[in-house]
Amino acid sequence: MICGVLLDLAGVLYVGDEPVPGAFEAVQRLHSAGLPTRYITNTTRSSSRATLDRLARMGLSIPPAALFTAPLAARSYIEARGLRPYLLIHPGLISEFQEYTEGPYDAVLVGDAGPRFTYENLNHAFRLLLEGAPLLAMGDNRYFKEAEGFSLDVGPFVTALEYAANTRAIVLGKPAPQFFHAALADLGCAAADVVMVGDDAIADVQGALSAGLQGILVETGKYRLGDEDQIQSPGARKVPDISAAVAWILDQRG
Amino acid sequence: MICGVLLDLAGVLYVGDEPVPGAFEAVQRLHSAGLPTRYITNTTRSSSRATLDRLARMGLSIPPAALFTAPLAARSYIEARGLRPYLLIHPGLISEFQEYTEGPYDAVLVGDAGPRFTYENLNHAFRLLLEGAPLLAMGDNRYFKEAEGFSLDVGPFVTALEYAANTRAIVLGKPAPQFFHAALADLGCAAADVVMVGDDAIADVQGALSAGLQGILVETGKYRLGDEDQIQSPGARKVPDISAAVAWILDQRG
Repeated sequence: MICGVLLDLAGVLYVGDEPVPGAFEAVQRLHSAGLPTRYITNTTRSSSRATLDRLARMGLSIPPAALFTAPLAARSYIEARGLRPYLLIHPGLISEFQEYTEGPYDAVLVGDAGPRFTYENLNHAFRLLLEGAPLLAMGDNRYFKEAEGFSLDVGPFVTALEYAANTRAIVLGKPAPQFFHAALADLGCAAADVVMVGDDAIADVQGALSAGLQGILVETGKYRLGDEDQIQSPGARKVPDISAAVAWILDQRG
Repeated sequence: MICGVLLDLAGVLYVGDEPVPGAFEAVQRLHSAGLPTRYITNTTRSSSRATLDRLARMGLSIPPAALFTAPLAARSYIEARGLRPYLLIHPGLISEFQEYTEGPYDAVLVGDAGPRFTYENLNHAFRLLLEGAPLLAMGDNRYFKEAEGFSLDVGPFVTALEYAANTRAIVLGKPAPQFFHAALADLGCAAADVVMVGDDAIADVQGALSAGLQGILVETGKYRLGDEDQIQSPGARKVPDISAAVAWILDQRG
């Protein structure tokens, strides 16, 4: 019995500024069927506000409370511990961390900083890590698909800093089980009764399976042939796109 | 019976533009004792010519044939296979790869590119790797010591690209055994009779031990307390600096 659905955004609902064909109609079918839905994203190039506005411009309105982002998870973590992180993040996300733009720093927070991943900034982060600052990562995704092709996501840079400073990052986003569980708690569903739909075999699908959810991999967005082979846990499903995923989910409901 | 000595350069003989105190006198003592010496470096911020000139300005003359560099090893590898690598390297090294500055590319060559490690250049390299281009790394060093502090070396960026493209780099420099063995062949010594002296616990000392040589870690350059714990193989020795290393070596000769 499926109780709720978690949807990834980029690569599932849209690529760049273009909706995936049929995606918004599929979301509408979930709503019409009365299936509660939450949106769970590691996107760190824009604020929640900008993400919601972007979706609205494309034609999909989401209530702010239904959006679970890695930056929001990171804020909770930082605030609970009173940390002052050096921000290696994208200009588009600065508005969500406005009070942390000055040192002294006792942590490093890394998102998909894009062009801010300069040698100078990475060195700054590295030197803090050498002094023992914790490394907080908003996801460990390898890459994502932009209109012009595949681009490096946050994961490779986190891995670089881990290797350089001989440390391990704390991941605050998918595939961290706590991140999935926060959305589950909001849905009020048991993990096994929730389906995660994403285009990232590791962060979305393996992450969901590891956290006890069901997982569906779609072949849109960053999907590349054979990505499903990276999924270690049993039970993953693969479908062409979110329309097919929703059809399968509604079919399970009978 | 020690037959020959391999010396790392940066961090052992000099830091920045300053010789390590007593270093050149220690090298002189090796020469006076008739112990053949080779210089083996992963430095990829300058050409062999520039490295030799720099040493000469500081007061140490080395015959060009005694210098074994990761870039020279990389050139041999590339030429033997007829590859055309995309160069993610430092401007100071371009002169050694002048004929490879234009595409189309079928490989990626990474050195310590310093400020050339931009998001754009890393993406360029990443997209070639996704298409199946081999990743050639001039070393896997984590960081090095500059006058102003610790800075990221090539290793973290190689690790980032490996993670992003789900591939493994071919390392052409320390700690690759072939690199040590090329210097051994030139010395005409058996591995067990050669001592490597370096400030990098992994690339220099663990690398030498894995290749069958003896290894001495010095506490100058990038050395940080506890680095020796990273050495897995037995037999490593730790001394304050190259003067002490040379004293020990000459002592073994009796």
